[in-house]
Amino acid sequence: MGDFAFDEDSRVVAAGSSGEFAAELTSRWNGTAGAVNGGYMLAICARALALGMPFPDPVVVSGFFLRPGTAGPAAVSASVIRSGRSTAFGEAALTQDGKDVVRVTAAFARLGKGADASAGAGAGAGADVGAGQDGLVFLDGTPPALPPPAECVGVPVGSFGLASIAERIEFRSAELPGWFLGHPSGRPASEFWMRFADGREADLLSLPLLVDSTAPSVLELGAGSVTIQLTVHLRAHPAPGWLACRATTRFVSNGYHEEDFEVWDSAGTLVAQSRQLALILPVSR
Amino acid sequence: MGDFAFDEDSRVVAAGSSGEFAAELTSRWNGTAGAVNGGYMLAICARALALGMPFPDPVVVSGFFLRPGTAGPAAVSASVIRSGRSTAFGEAALTQDGKDVVRVTAAFARLGKGADASAGAGAGAGADVGAGQDGLVFLDGTPPALPPPAECVGVPVGSFGLASIAERIEFRSAELPGWFLGHPSGRPASEFWMRFADGREADLLSLPLLVDSTAPSVLELGAGSVTIQLTVHLRAHPAPGWLACRATTRFVSNGYHEEDFEVWDSAGTLVAQSRQLALILPVSR
Repeated sequence: MGDFAFDEDSRVVAAGSSGEFAAELTSRWNGTAGAVNGGYMLAICARALALGMPFPDPVVVSGFFLRPGTAGPAAVSASVIRSGRSTAFGEAALTQDGKDVVRVTAAFARLGKGADASAGAGAGAGADVGAGQDGLVFLDGTPPALPPPAECVGVPVGSFGLASIAERIEFRSAELPGWFLGHPSGRPASEFWMRFADGREADLLSLPLLVDSTAPSVLELGAGSVTIQLTVHLRAHPAPGWLACRATTRFVSNGYHEEDFEVWDSAGTLVAQSRQLALILPVSR
Repeated sequence: MGDFAFDEDSRVVAAGSSGEFAAELTSRWNGTAGAVNGGYMLAICARALALGMPFPDPVVVSGFFLRPGTAGPAAVSASVIRSGRSTAFGEAALTQDGKDVVRVTAAFARLGKGADASAGAGAGAGADVGAGQDGLVFLDGTPPALPPPAECVGVPVGSFGLASIAERIEFRSAELPGWFLGHPSGRPASEFWMRFADGREADLLSLPLLVDSTAPSVLELGAGSVTIQLTVHLRAHPAPGWLACRATTRFVSNGYHEEDFEVWDSAGTLVAQSRQLALILPVSR
């Protein structure tokens, strides 16, 4: 249809009464287990919500994953639950065969351009503090220090097993990950470049997918992961180009782990920050 | 009634049909602006949800704050939306005068005791890795290194202005905070002890309150804060005693900030990890 893959596959079509949409989950965003990626379904719900919200920009999107999604038809129900002066709230449910797959709640607002919020070039451990067009700016963190994308390497797409999502989204890092080389590093943290393979630029509505699109950090501990809940903060409109990302798991205990994810755009601005809670799974090799 | 303050004030009483409850918001958990604390309302919703869930323990609770809550009657509607083999999901709404105040989604499960997941004594920057009773354990973080509570200091309760919550929950830190001394430190991060003032021990259902009970970290930047969304991960049942806490804001930009919060129990186990997205507010002094 001339669209990029993400736009085509996240399309929602009005169906019946207000706030009801039809969507088609494709198998082009599957993870390593062959299931539809959770962030992809979250992005579909955000897109349905955006059609009805009085403000254009999602600022926080929270999704609970009730069942695995499967390629095929889905219904999305989206509604505004509160429209305030500067923030509006909405909820959405994605169902398949009448069963809830994902439940989403989100807040929308009008987000500034964020160009005043980029980390200073060469900023070190010290925090940047200033007053931008939207007031106070404080940045205690910098984009990952990566070699240029052309000097980085990517895991060959076929290496991800059933993960068709690796054909849609490019990842490049300074070194190939330990889990891919057959010796997990024991450090569930990574930094890498990311972009849509077909040249689509990232925007606020695609970031809920992008923050959930990489191999789970706990692969470096020899474990797998099933997401229960994912919260995404959208902090600024991304500039065009490669995204510099940082994924980190700090705590695995009691059968659960969190994974934090930061996305920095090509202008050095933090554009998304997410955290998920996931069940830890043994990996058989 | 012989109850502790938190139990008394978070009580929900079945009202009418299944899943409908009456609650009474008290003014005993107000923040500095005189509004009912968001975490307190989140805890009420979690308590209502717990009554209907097939598993006892909340593992992740996500709340959106649509309107300020005010002392007085509230209605809570709670329902199970999916009951799986090991995880169940529920949603709740707290309303006042028929208007939505808080919307909550949560996942419940049966959480292990977590005693195998305490950080090793004297653990430094290196991560602990091991296999506990519930499988893989990885801990890349340690409790705050605080002097014993008896050697710490607390801001005098009356200093919090309208914040009655400071009478219910004790905070102690190595030094008095900069915002209290009249010269914000410029570093929106703090470590401190916390416990209920009346001797009630923390549990999973009170942690959603406790992670939201302190003065916002951005006070150290001379700013105030209004929470839009709060996600709480419950990682282990807390042992009795003081809780060691760490609150951190790393990014203020575009009018928003996040605040991360860790709660470690007296056995050195991470029991809760939360993150909120909040609007930044100017503070007039």
